[in-house]
Amino acid sequence: MARTVERGFPRAEYEARAARAQALMTGHELDALFVTSEQHVRWFTGFDSQFWASPTRPWFVIVPREGALIAVIPEIGAPIMARTWVEDIRTWPAPVPEDDGVSLVCNAIGSLPRRFGRIGAEMGPETVLRMPAADFLRIGETIAPLAFADGTPVLRGLRGVKSPAEIDRIRHVCQLTSEAFLALPEKLSAGMTEWEACREMRIEVLRRGADSSPYMMGAAGPGGYDNIIMGPTQKVIEAGDILIIDTGTTFDGYYCDFDRNFAFGEPDDAAKRAHEAVWRATQAGIDAARPGATTSDLWRAMAKVLEAAGSLGNNVGRMGHGLGMQLTEWPSNRPGDDTELVPGMVLTIEPGMEFAPGRMMVHEENIAVTEDGCELLTIRAAADMPVVG
Amino acid sequence: MARTVERGFPRAEYEARAARAQALMTGHELDALFVTSEQHVRWFTGFDSQFWASPTRPWFVIVPREGALIAVIPEIGAPIMARTWVEDIRTWPAPVPEDDGVSLVCNAIGSLPRRFGRIGAEMGPETVLRMPAADFLRIGETIAPLAFADGTPVLRGLRGVKSPAEIDRIRHVCQLTSEAFLALPEKLSAGMTEWEACREMRIEVLRRGADSSPYMMGAAGPGGYDNIIMGPTQKVIEAGDILIIDTGTTFDGYYCDFDRNFAFGEPDDAAKRAHEAVWRATQAGIDAARPGATTSDLWRAMAKVLEAAGSLGNNVGRMGHGLGMQLTEWPSNRPGDDTELVPGMVLTIEPGMEFAPGRMMVHEENIAVTEDGCELLTIRAAADMPVVG
Repeated sequence: MARTVERGFPRAEYEARAARAQALMTGHELDALFVTSEQHVRWFTGFDSQFWASPTRPWFVIVPREGALIAVIPEIGAPIMARTWVEDIRTWPAPVPEDDGVSLVCNAIGSLPRRFGRIGAEMGPETVLRMPAADFLRIGETIAPLAFADGTPVLRGLRGVKSPAEIDRIRHVCQLTSEAFLALPEKLSAGMTEWEACREMRIEVLRRGADSSPYMMGAAGPGGYDNIIMGPTQKVIEAGDILIIDTGTTFDGYYCDFDRNFAFGEPDDAAKRAHEAVWRATQAGIDAARPGATTSDLWRAMAKVLEAAGSLGNNVGRMGHGLGMQLTEWPSNRPGDDTELVPGMVLTIEPGMEFAPGRMMVHEENIAVTEDGCELLTIRAAADMPVVG
Repeated sequence: MARTVERGFPRAEYEARAARAQALMTGHELDALFVTSEQHVRWFTGFDSQFWASPTRPWFVIVPREGALIAVIPEIGAPIMARTWVEDIRTWPAPVPEDDGVSLVCNAIGSLPRRFGRIGAEMGPETVLRMPAADFLRIGETIAPLAFADGTPVLRGLRGVKSPAEIDRIRHVCQLTSEAFLALPEKLSAGMTEWEACREMRIEVLRRGADSSPYMMGAAGPGGYDNIIMGPTQKVIEAGDILIIDTGTTFDGYYCDFDRNFAFGEPDDAAKRAHEAVWRATQAGIDAARPGATTSDLWRAMAKVLEAAGSLGNNVGRMGHGLGMQLTEWPSNRPGDDTELVPGMVLTIEPGMEFAPGRMMVHEENIAVTEDGCELLTIRAAADMPVVG
């Protein structure tokens, strides 16, 4: 593929991130952010390793309201962290279950400049503290009178608006995955299992330059599938089935998240109409996305089309969400979310409906909010489902 | 590939797991286990979904000391959970950040039979509470006088000893990945990047029936690599380089975790000697693995060989670990761990050393402890490194 996108970010990007964080911390009355998860550690430092797949060792980064970042990490990671812009790196010979970084973290937090007495941690919705909960409680007791507070509002504010360099990566993986979806029908045929169909798609995205596909869901059923989160199974896809493949595929730490539907043989009228309805609902969502609109506006724009098309509802709870270093991020396109869109937000537009009992149709595209509307990051699906065979 | 292994487990397997859990809970004075992570939810229920890649919705399973499991899960997962052996399924239309399952969980825990007043949660080493920490604290306050306690010792005891059906899956993925490694040299050549070499291996394991490769690390350097957790990068592999690929590849929810070294052109004497040393250390670890030996014995058996070979040490902190539904599990082969091996434990045997400044050599095989020794699950690497080109 001719298209290439640089990997990694220049030091200036990380400096800008830290500066934004420090400004937000003052507003939220925090003396520091304390982060433990792959995405937050990577977002602040650039530390890039698949080693997060091993749950054995915790990793900690402290972003003080004033001054430089502190990484408190297992020795095994020191040579890698040393290649990032972080200079204050403190290590221990993990795993040491008796004290896996706990005293180092307590010392680091204890010596920070104090103003508010609050340390923001990953405690709120859509975050996970990636460390033993007992150690988190132990640290909380040791650092008193300093106290942990929820850092989620700051972290959301930071990661919810992407830089142009971040959007470059998401666009890149959206484009290569779109091209893989376009090439897929000729690799598919009735008689394959859902699992085999998804394997073909996994190989297609790898060949086109993706790093990995942490999410590659596939489900097929006669005239429509009955769920969108299980599978692929060993079920054989037969003529008359509709197959959905939904993928979270990554490039340089950033995800796409969208799906495509495939008809095995000419689809029946109900399936055709359902696909057309979710396609039009997607268009309504894209058309509604601009600065000043809210996530709830997007939901309403999509819901209106689906209701008119006779939707029986769905069990997803929303119609799209934020997208970036994780498959799903804040915010949610749902009534009551009411997040105002601003340029730099990246969202999935994901209307779905049960159009007959046990038959679902879901569609999805990815967009970036711009100054005057939005940019489609994926290659727009055709209004008619591709037909296999 | 002719070899096939069934997917999924019969109901009897889950009943036996729950019974073991209930017996252990009494000994640890717990009224229930409360689990939130992919592996624990799947281990108890059989719930199988890649949807865990989305951090938005928490999932909860309660295993009472007496009586049936309770699943408290997002509506989107109900049709899938209904296919498992779990009958008591309680749902809410997640995401609902104001109350994402919290009241349902409090009600469920509040109505359990009480004897000890303690609920075991994922709080200890190598576990993560996969839910917002603030919600965990809120639940803890609401269920008082019931209190959360660390459920890790029970969970370790359960997952640390695998059933024959679990070992079947690990053996299967170890074998297919071994075969992929054996086929790899003919796909490699000097001039490829580390990233391209790893992509070839990703495709090889997919073609042979693997589900995914959450870990596919690759690092190359002249006469030896300088780390084993970063990469693959875009660095071009040149003649004279040694490449390590280390993979955690999965089948039906179970991992292999082992590596292979490849010399690009005839390796120099120091690299040859280092490979021979880690190969012999691996053999010493395998030979030492039998019921009654400890993880610390395994470490000593390997360390003795490495020291005699002039090891400059390593920064890994251990030489192998448990293996199963996660890339790394309890216990660790390290001094002071002292876990006694029992039949059904699955371990990696992973000696590594810096043999010259900035040059590492690591080797790894996977074994299952049997009644009278151990079974090698991988296809044993050749004592001499395969040479590419």
